[in-house]
Amino acid sequence: MPTTLKEFESVFPQLVEYLTEHCRHYNLPKNALDWYRKATDHMQSLFHNTVGGKCNRGMSVVDTSSLLLGRSLSKDEYFRSATLGWMIELLQAFFLVSDDIMDSSKTRRGSPCWYRMPEVGMIAINDAFMLESSIFLLLKKYFRQEKSYVDLMELFHEVTFQTELGQACDLLTAPEDKVDLDNFSLEKYTFIVIFKTAYYSFYLPVALALHFCGMATEKNLQQAKDILIPMGEYFQVQDDYLDNFADPETLGKIGTDIQDNKCSWLVNQALKRASAEQRKVLDENYGRKDKECEARVKVVFSDLKLDQVYREYEEERVGEIRKMISQVDETEGLKKEVFEEFLRKIYQRSK
Amino acid sequence: MPTTLKEFESVFPQLVEYLTEHCRHYNLPKNALDWYRKATDHMQSLFHNTVGGKCNRGMSVVDTSSLLLGRSLSKDEYFRSATLGWMIELLQAFFLVSDDIMDSSKTRRGSPCWYRMPEVGMIAINDAFMLESSIFLLLKKYFRQEKSYVDLMELFHEVTFQTELGQACDLLTAPEDKVDLDNFSLEKYTFIVIFKTAYYSFYLPVALALHFCGMATEKNLQQAKDILIPMGEYFQVQDDYLDNFADPETLGKIGTDIQDNKCSWLVNQALKRASAEQRKVLDENYGRKDKECEARVKVVFSDLKLDQVYREYEEERVGEIRKMISQVDETEGLKKEVFEEFLRKIYQRSK
Repeated sequence: MPTTLKEFESVFPQLVEYLTEHCRHYNLPKNALDWYRKATDHMQSLFHNTVGGKCNRGMSVVDTSSLLLGRSLSKDEYFRSATLGWMIELLQAFFLVSDDIMDSSKTRRGSPCWYRMPEVGMIAINDAFMLESSIFLLLKKYFRQEKSYVDLMELFHEVTFQTELGQACDLLTAPEDKVDLDNFSLEKYTFIVIFKTAYYSFYLPVALALHFCGMATEKNLQQAKDILIPMGEYFQVQDDYLDNFADPETLGKIGTDIQDNKCSWLVNQALKRASAEQRKVLDENYGRKDKECEARVKVVFSDLKLDQVYREYEEERVGEIRKMISQVDETEGLKKEVFEEFLRKIYQRSK
Repeated sequence: MPTTLKEFESVFPQLVEYLTEHCRHYNLPKNALDWYRKATDHMQSLFHNTVGGKCNRGMSVVDTSSLLLGRSLSKDEYFRSATLGWMIELLQAFFLVSDDIMDSSKTRRGSPCWYRMPEVGMIAINDAFMLESSIFLLLKKYFRQEKSYVDLMELFHEVTFQTELGQACDLLTAPEDKVDLDNFSLEKYTFIVIFKTAYYSFYLPVALALHFCGMATEKNLQQAKDILIPMGEYFQVQDDYLDNFADPETLGKIGTDIQDNKCSWLVNQALKRASAEQRKVLDENYGRKDKECEARVKVVFSDLKLDQVYREYEEERVGEIRKMISQVDETEGLKKEVFEEFLRKIYQRSK
């Protein structure tokens, strides 16, 4: 039985309790202690309604661990695998709090971004740092005695750096205030989505579960990466497709990629296919904070039948992924089911 | 013979080369690769003229290692201890790049802050993250095979978190836009300077050198902390004193603590000693971006003879520190000389 959000959430207060206690032993003055708790609590409320579900990244560490062990988890195993899951949520919080500042975003999941809350402002940068640091405090507290401790630290270091590289490339390729479609390319697009999203959202949960279950052999980690990175890429392409083509009612938000000058899959496909005339429309209208410009871009996307291009892409990609899953070597404990479960959750999703 | 800045600097290009190479194997697109190099190079140029000298924190790892071993370092030992030193400089770069954004600073050491450079802006936040990540890339590359590898990672995690707590407390205690002197206290002041400055500037270099020399016993680390934390506190009190009382010509800058609403040692001493009338002057004039307000605060500082209060503090504090140094137990390889050297560099400094 997959874990529930309620069960997963029930672990978090104990983690916050430990983190706060740790600060208290430093004799942190009360104003700063209260603030740290507030920032950490905010983190929790922020991620209940995350893209593609609710705490999906974190919960998938628990579910993958149970699948790998082929049984339900003991109370202690649940707590510890969920703690690893919460570290992904902390990592994501670190990224999103700071991404929102870098992108000058206004809201996240319907609420004002953390840095736009009263009395927060640029302190949010330091809060983001503290969320990241909390990962390593928790690792030390709960995993120091494990053989995998060094590997876990290195895994978080590596995935963090990969995500930062993806973000750097994204910011440099698609600055919001300077539209230049010559900057875009499918090669850059692929790099950005793999590094900014796929590593931490798809590879990291499974890699953590493999370490947790004592199955993190080189071969298993490599097989996981070979399947989950393309799956993460597919997930982000879907995201870009839905941003433009999904029903906003179902999606739960109104897409803004065109106005935000995003280096999205759609615009890259359009650039590949556009006539000189269509290219001109894109050059003159993409990335403008203007409803009418956006509408003109949407017409080009529609004329180029990008929804159909997407559906063909999806079937082909999913076919490839299914084939890779069928070829997984299970002799070192890895299971096809793990990947089938990830794919099942995202295939043909509508939000 | 203490190391020279030139020698210490000569190590850096090789580190940047490794970091760039590491990114290249990820197939980082060229625009992002060039940017990473640029941000890292900027880091180097930024820290040639750092407070209290030039790359003092980094170089002191090399000098302390040589003192602990009681001999000059081999070429390889020099490179490796300097690499640890450069990690402190990277950590400081991470903090300063982001502190400048949080404080809306305009310049750092005479040049525009990184985030204010053309085309940088808020990307600087992600650059700061990448500087931090570089520490762990270098640790993995050059120290993975060492017994101290885990301790070194944990040391960086802990000191990073401590510095973030200090910064959080500082930002909450002295927001630039909301002056409330009731917020200040010597207790908070002490917490801020110990956590924001003393740990990474004074304790970290010696702790790294102890690990490097295989002398990081619990006792040695504790002795180092017991002396270096008060020394770091004294260093910051000096800094605050110089900000107001030093000759700007000698200091190389004009102090701005009063206008910036800093929770400095001087204002805390003034609050402790002020008459009702003087307190009123402070309440009405501290933290205002106004030359005349600043001048009125300076008069109170002068009437309260804070320069004399400082000199008494300095003699008392240095006396205590000297006493602690004289009592250092050298049986596990630690040497009094290490601390004498640190103290010699800062005692009665004028800039």
